[in-house]
Amino acid sequence: MPLFDLPLTELRAYRPDRDEPADFDDFWRGTLDTAAAVPLDVRAHPVDTPLTGVTVEDVRFAGWNGDPVHAWYIAPRHTTPLGCVVTYIGYHGGRGLPHQHLVWPTAGWATLVMDSRGQGGSSTSSPGATGDPHGTDDPQAPGMMTKGILSPETYYYRRLFVDAVRAVDVATTRQGVPPGRIVVCGGSQGGGIAQAVAGLRDDLLAAFIDVPFLTHFRRALDIASTGPYPEIVRLLAARRDLEEPVMRTLSYFDGMHFAARARTAALYSVALRDTTCPPSTVFAGYHHWAGDKEIDVWPWNEHEGGQGHQVERQLARLRQMADGVAERLGLRP
Amino acid sequence: MPLFDLPLTELRAYRPDRDEPADFDDFWRGTLDTAAAVPLDVRAHPVDTPLTGVTVEDVRFAGWNGDPVHAWYIAPRHTTPLGCVVTYIGYHGGRGLPHQHLVWPTAGWATLVMDSRGQGGSSTSSPGATGDPHGTDDPQAPGMMTKGILSPETYYYRRLFVDAVRAVDVATTRQGVPPGRIVVCGGSQGGGIAQAVAGLRDDLLAAFIDVPFLTHFRRALDIASTGPYPEIVRLLAARRDLEEPVMRTLSYFDGMHFAARARTAALYSVALRDTTCPPSTVFAGYHHWAGDKEIDVWPWNEHEGGQGHQVERQLARLRQMADGVAERLGLRP
Amino acid sequence: MPLFDLPLTELRAYRPDRDEPADFDDFWRGTLDTAAAVPLDVRAHPVDTPLTGVTVEDVRFAGWNGDPVHAWYIAPRHTTPLGCVVTYIGYHGGRGLPHQHLVWPTAGWATLVMDSRGQGGSSTSSPGATGDPHGTDDPQAPGMMTKGILSPETYYYRRLFVDAVRAVDVATTRQGVPPGRIVVCGGSQGGGIAQAVAGLRDDLLAAFIDVPFLTHFRRALDIASTGPYPEIVRLLAARRDLEEPVMRTLSYFDGMHFAARARTAALYSVALRDTTCPPSTVFAGYHHWAGDKEIDVWPWNEHEGGQGHQVERQLARLRQMADGVAERLGLRP
Amino acid sequence: MPLFDLPLTELRAYRPDRDEPADFDDFWRGTLDTAAAVPLDVRAHPVDTPLTGVTVEDVRFAGWNGDPVHAWYIAPRHTTPLGCVVTYIGYHGGRGLPHQHLVWPTAGWATLVMDSRGQGGSSTSSPGATGDPHGTDDPQAPGMMTKGILSPETYYYRRLFVDAVRAVDVATTRQGVPPGRIVVCGGSQGGGIAQAVAGLRDDLLAAFIDVPFLTHFRRALDIASTGPYPEIVRLLAARRDLEEPVMRTLSYFDGMHFAARARTAALYSVALRDTTCPPSTVFAGYHHWAGDKEIDVWPWNEHEGGQGHQVERQLARLRQMADGVAERLGLRP
Amino acid sequence: MPLFDLPLTELRAYRPDRDEPADFDDFWRGTLDTAAAVPLDVRAHPVDTPLTGVTVEDVRFAGWNGDPVHAWYIAPRHTTPLGCVVTYIGYHGGRGLPHQHLVWPTAGWATLVMDSRGQGGSSTSSPGATGDPHGTDDPQAPGMMTKGILSPETYYYRRLFVDAVRAVDVATTRQGVPPGRIVVCGGSQGGGIAQAVAGLRDDLLAAFIDVPFLTHFRRALDIASTGPYPEIVRLLAARRDLEEPVMRTLSYFDGMHFAARARTAALYSVALRDTTCPPSTVFAGYHHWAGDKEIDVWPWNEHEGGQGHQVERQLARLRQMADGVAERLGLRP
Amino acid sequence: MPLFDLPLTELRAYRPDRDEPADFDDFWRGTLDTAAAVPLDVRAHPVDTPLTGVTVEDVRFAGWNGDPVHAWYIAPRHTTPLGCVVTYIGYHGGRGLPHQHLVWPTAGWATLVMDSRGQGGSSTSSPGATGDPHGTDDPQAPGMMTKGILSPETYYYRRLFVDAVRAVDVATTRQGVPPGRIVVCGGSQGGGIAQAVAGLRDDLLAAFIDVPFLTHFRRALDIASTGPYPEIVRLLAARRDLEEPVMRTLSYFDGMHFAARARTAALYSVALRDTTCPPSTVFAGYHHWAGDKEIDVWPWNEHEGGQGHQVERQLARLRQMADGVAERLGLRP
Repeated sequence: MPLFDLPLTELRAYRPDRDEPADFDDFWRGTLDTAAAVPLDVRAHPVDTPLTGVTVEDVRFAGWNGDPVHAWYIAPRHTTPLGCVVTYIGYHGGRGLPHQHLVWPTAGWATLVMDSRGQGGSSTSSPGATGDPHGTDDPQAPGMMTKGILSPETYYYRRLFVDAVRAVDVATTRQGVPPGRIVVCGGSQGGGIAQAVAGLRDDLLAAFIDVPFLTHFRRALDIASTGPYPEIVRLLAARRDLEEPVMRTLSYFDGMHFAARARTAALYSVALRDTTCPPSTVFAGYHHWAGDKEIDVWPWNEHEGGQGHQVERQLARLRQMADGVAERLGLRP
Repeated sequence: MPLFDLPLTELRAYRPDRDEPADFDDFWRGTLDTAAAVPLDVRAHPVDTPLTGVTVEDVRFAGWNGDPVHAWYIAPRHTTPLGCVVTYIGYHGGRGLPHQHLVWPTAGWATLVMDSRGQGGSSTSSPGATGDPHGTDDPQAPGMMTKGILSPETYYYRRLFVDAVRAVDVATTRQGVPPGRIVVCGGSQGGGIAQAVAGLRDDLLAAFIDVPFLTHFRRALDIASTGPYPEIVRLLAARRDLEEPVMRTLSYFDGMHFAARARTAALYSVALRDTTCPPSTVFAGYHHWAGDKEIDVWPWNEHEGGQGHQVERQLARLRQMADGVAERLGLRP
Repeated sequence: MPLFDLPLTELRAYRPDRDEPADFDDFWRGTLDTAAAVPLDVRAHPVDTPLTGVTVEDVRFAGWNGDPVHAWYIAPRHTTPLGCVVTYIGYHGGRGLPHQHLVWPTAGWATLVMDSRGQGGSSTSSPGATGDPHGTDDPQAPGMMTKGILSPETYYYRRLFVDAVRAVDVATTRQGVPPGRIVVCGGSQGGGIAQAVAGLRDDLLAAFIDVPFLTHFRRALDIASTGPYPEIVRLLAARRDLEEPVMRTLSYFDGMHFAARARTAALYSVALRDTTCPPSTVFAGYHHWAGDKEIDVWPWNEHEGGQGHQVERQLARLRQMADGVAERLGLRP
Repeated sequence: MPLFDLPLTELRAYRPDRDEPADFDDFWRGTLDTAAAVPLDVRAHPVDTPLTGVTVEDVRFAGWNGDPVHAWYIAPRHTTPLGCVVTYIGYHGGRGLPHQHLVWPTAGWATLVMDSRGQGGSSTSSPGATGDPHGTDDPQAPGMMTKGILSPETYYYRRLFVDAVRAVDVATTRQGVPPGRIVVCGGSQGGGIAQAVAGLRDDLLAAFIDVPFLTHFRRALDIASTGPYPEIVRLLAARRDLEEPVMRTLSYFDGMHFAARARTAALYSVALRDTTCPPSTVFAGYHHWAGDKEIDVWPWNEHEGGQGHQVERQLARLRQMADGVAERLGLRP
Repeated sequence: MPLFDLPLTELRAYRPDRDEPADFDDFWRGTLDTAAAVPLDVRAHPVDTPLTGVTVEDVRFAGWNGDPVHAWYIAPRHTTPLGCVVTYIGYHGGRGLPHQHLVWPTAGWATLVMDSRGQGGSSTSSPGATGDPHGTDDPQAPGMMTKGILSPETYYYRRLFVDAVRAVDVATTRQGVPPGRIVVCGGSQGGGIAQAVAGLRDDLLAAFIDVPFLTHFRRALDIASTGPYPEIVRLLAARRDLEEPVMRTLSYFDGMHFAARARTAALYSVALRDTTCPPSTVFAGYHHWAGDKEIDVWPWNEHEGGQGHQVERQLARLRQMADGVAERLGLRP
Repeated sequence: MPLFDLPLTELRAYRPDRDEPADFDDFWRGTLDTAAAVPLDVRAHPVDTPLTGVTVEDVRFAGWNGDPVHAWYIAPRHTTPLGCVVTYIGYHGGRGLPHQHLVWPTAGWATLVMDSRGQGGSSTSSPGATGDPHGTDDPQAPGMMTKGILSPETYYYRRLFVDAVRAVDVATTRQGVPPGRIVVCGGSQGGGIAQAVAGLRDDLLAAFIDVPFLTHFRRALDIASTGPYPEIVRLLAARRDLEEPVMRTLSYFDGMHFAARARTAALYSVALRDTTCPPSTVFAGYHHWAGDKEIDVWPWNEHEGGQGHQVERQLARLRQMADGVAERLGLRP
């Protein structure tokens, strides 16, 4: 895939205006308040696996509306976790299987891997276990992008973002997870979710946001040629009357607005040949991020981005943070 | 597309055994009884269109669970309808726009064009207006094929088939539609629905079933290379543990079983190069059809089948039927 | 498909210079004079169809050179036609079957649906019945775009445009069609034909021109990536010596030049993701249109454009025009 | 491309029945008689090229109906030609440029390279110069396969086969070409033409027939997935009413029938992964060939077949034949 | 992807004859003897990673010809390894990064992940670090499949299989790895390698062979439509003269012959829609396997096979084996 | 393919800065000196072919490192060669077969057609006979583009360019080839090689450089979407750490730098829709060419460029040069 978006020098400066609804904060405060009225109801069953180096729990908690959301909680067996990395999954995938999430536990961190409700039924590598028990009053295009999209109240991602915010609370309930030691993490949709959660909570240690989706919709719909953004184009091409309500809904879910509210440190990544989450949309989120930030640029990659190499950078960052904490606590010279 | 299924001579004799659940009839009797407990609640609003040759009503009725289902009712303005053709729509499409359904009215028949709940959000030519207000407790593959597929009670097509059965009742409520003069009709998914309705009702005049979908699932999953059958393969490839419940569910929805219960006259069509609804699966339904039947074979076509030419044959058949009625009533010499 | 042409704000202002041959008008006047020397020789056979709401005639008239051109004439049976919509067909298609053209008759207008000579042999949905009994003295690329393209005199579209101009005359011969009440209409190639006819006749009531083809060739050959324009590129890639005569020929057929001569009211449509008839080429024609004009922009669509929704706008426009006429005649208060 | 046709052992025995029209010979005798009434009218202009090793003539002769057909005649400059190889071109191509046809002249043979009328307008590597000045009374699919296909009298290949038969006569008019020393040669369409010419003439020295097209149509239409056979499927898919006349026409052009009448020696080639001219259709022609014959099988190739390696075998065969002639004439010991 | 190979019931019985060169064993004994003359020269550098739960060594050993081969050796930090799983990589991939191989260590087993020489330069997810410092005396198709394929002595896979056999020796040099506790493991190419190693060594505990490649070449070349087998077809299509030496070479590398010599227990997996390693070729290897064996069949999957679910079965099998060992040693009741 | 690169007017002026390593000349002088230490060791075996108009020699010479390189030497049999055209081959191809290289001999020039080492194993039309007996110390992407790319010393193209430089020496050893009468020639990769050779030798008569590859890498990697440039992108996407050494290596092989050193006359060609060797990269080389130069622009073509028509221009240029020589020698009036 050749380059197709702005040149890197322009990307480095690309910070489009945000077109934010006046009641953005009210909407989300109301949403979280509503959600908070339902108890978290965490049910965690230890799973006996041959993975003797970790403990595995099959976790179920009450997400939006009290709907059950499945997750894996995986912690090092031989050490107390340094913290917990809450992991959100890319589009179409689910939480997969425990043995697929051993990086953070092996690095001394627990991880909570949250299903994306309704997803995971078509990913051979990463199946899921959680349904989305909400239907819609209107037709949708196949996939999740247009489910309930006619109003912010009914949009699929409202439910998913609330699940994700609450997953952080779930993480804090796990034994030995120290307070204030939660990192949110994900790639593509998972990165978009992590970005949103960081805009909705102020108690995170860090956010790892790889090639994030769900950001700068207006431009994404114009230039993304692969992946899930075109599902929205498909709906609007069929239901030619819906542009206004759809755009209004999306304005409550645009990653730029969440980034502008984030206070934690972020490590972003972006790939310059990524036609699914085009680089200008990623930089749009990055440049609005209000906290500390850094971005890794992968000039030769498509949507896969840095993959394992990005994980290595995240591991290094985690170690730095752990060292920093240890230092502050006087545990290291 | 070259030929890929059995040779025509074998297709002409292809009548696979049916592997029917023992409680198939109980399941559907129970389903229809449950549905019948909800009043039909037909709301029909005349629509003022420039189409002066017909009357158009924007119809809403209570489908499964009382969920609102949208339809168009279009009748000739200058004559009393000879009957009503209830039209079901192909996969991804919705009821579209009134001016797209003028064939039957111009031939003197009213038509009721029913939305397929939840569909119509990605078809530029045939948008829909009806949601499917039911979520799922499990992940699904994108599209409708695997929605709620883990049990017959929750499967999407249970709701859609009930809507379709009730649409016939709706048709009989329309002014001037003579009793016993309802034809069900559709292509692909619409053909599969018509076939199912004909197996669930005994008061139809005829069924026009073009390149029907939803029939002989076992073989279809093995040989269909395009269209919606592969959505189920996708789910089973991801959720490798679900073959048993999925196959059990599908056994309550297989068009062969409905065909075996049909008592009305059917006009089928089949296309020999159709990789979406392979010809052997169509002949499987056809050969089990218990009523009068005839099949048009399109040897050179893919899933489009006979298209307008098939409609011409259906129009001719309708005229024969109208003449037959007239004769019986002594209206023609 | 992402956006690929100019931004909408630039499209709104895009009015490229026209590079018109000096004898453009002479060429077409001569062509029409030559054509006029052959009697129209309309032969219309009533067709007995089950479509009792309309009358159908299988029409044959003498097109360019007296060659027989087939058409359907379909009129409301119960009312006098308010006028006649002459319909031209998109590339590869023919007049199809009568039941596929019921919109205008149901709206009270007759319609004449003209075959595109030589086309309709590869469209499963819209077959044709008319040959093009003219060969060529030179090789061509498959398809019609390069047939006879080495001189304006022998170019395929000269014959087709003449057929189309004469189809309007045919329409006026049909019983009950009021004088001055002819609308020309079509999408893609059909839109290009309608645009040309409107430049060659001054007696039309209106022109409905959807996503028109055959316009602003120079740019279209540079940016269209799908559809028939690339046939010309293919010829020029093979016969590298022919650019000059080919470009000269096309200059006699460019929709911009016809638009600049049109005097009737036009309703255009354009789709912003249309790689077959790119939006800048459509706006090029639109901005040169010399009569009243309006354009519907479909921002999310590819070449399908507005489809049924555009037809609804055309129906509404027709009704307005009918009302206007009625008012002028004192038939409405 | 994997294997897709019969296994080689079955191919070696595959000799389907021929379903030949009763008047096949009458049709072709009449056709050739009609053609013979028009003088050959060979016009050959020496071309001054930098190719000093050969003489090049730009030849034009009267083909079917006296239509001008272009050809190159290229002969060794320094020796008398051993004979002449008449070369027919594959689908879409034309005679190209003189420097592309130097193999036979360099081997001591002249060559006459005949344009395929109407083709050569879309082949960047092999452009043509000859039109097909015959139109059609019916629509066609793009390409030449369905041009005039509704009757054997009007079918495109009748004209092309007559051109090809006459090209042999043209070859005999060239200076120094010894009588009885004409070889016909071609690949794909060119092979189909050579096969046909060999069935229509009894004065050939040999025929080189590579991966021949235009043979065993019935099966080819069922299994060919690429190339020109599907053009016919496309017509029949659109014009569903035409199967009978189309199949009747093709029965006059099936290479099996020509092969069964051939008396000369043939060198065939076939490729086992050829989805354009499937191996069973090639073997069908080969097994019916009535003269001496040999076939080279390329087990790993698709439609390209043996390419240069097959040419090497033909060159070797030519040398054998030249030696044989020399021996018979007492020119070699 | 629909089914395309033999039906499962036939696959269950599919055991084709082996066409084995007489000196197969001599060739491999000689090869291994030659290899053994070069010291293993293991150089293992501890790597400081943030993965505190494991120890990581960057291993380099002398493979075929003493060429350096890179590997990761990863062992549980807190426990003595139960054994070592030697992992071979699928086509195009390399050893990747340490954090991508944590499953076996977390289950208490060490793992040695061997680079496939020359590969890993085009896999974004699994890059490699090892070159193949041997050129070829003949042209090859891109990729590794045809490198040196003109004789068994020079074939790429001779070097790779020797590396793989020696990797087992490397594993036994690692601290704490108990003797006789080596499992070989891999998918696709990795499965083919594991299968070969199991045929060349008699000291393995088990072999995990997923959707193995490099097996039953004759059939694979005829039916595989994706993946690396077609590289060989490509060479033979270009170099039409090489079939004999190529087939001879492949006969020394066919997985069926290695399977027939294996004495250890195997867990195979096969996917029924796998066009890269078609199921009949996998069953061919499986049915010739001479040791204990079991096969998991994934009926809905393509080449991805069982993925994480297959790993779960392997983990369970490992635990069984560990328990069995413990029991034998009297460590468990 | 639509246009995608700069507009022609900008291309006409496009002359990007060259970013040349300081020791570029040293590197190449050293390379050629090293090479020169190995005797040329030309072994030429006359081949008895049926091509009686030419003499054919199967040539083997010592290329880089003394590695054997195969070539055909083909000369007119009946005349003394006017000079020799050394032909380099496009990517994936080899020297093919003698009868495929008759253009220059028929025009009175000998030709030496050099294999590209290691290539020719996947081109059905142009197989090769020469291996590349050098392996690599690092992984590579499939194909030749990244073989040894981590340093200029080991890069594949160093060896190939040296072979090519020496092929000119080979040509001068052939009987009757007049000194100073060598033309280098090729398309795509062959054009890139010819361009490099012209920068490394000062004794050439002319260079024919068609749609040259291997030029202006930086831009080519950003915009080429087909062909071999993306192999390098693939490596860098996998081995994300290698950008610096790879870019450094490429700087020693960039056609712009060779062009800037050329002193002979060049005839370039470029195609405006060429996504394999984008026009801006071709113009970059052309504009830096230091000798006489001319460029043929093919506005409608993709990577095929002018093909046979370009050959005609080259033939004409050769004749001009031959005439010029003759004139200088007083052989023509």
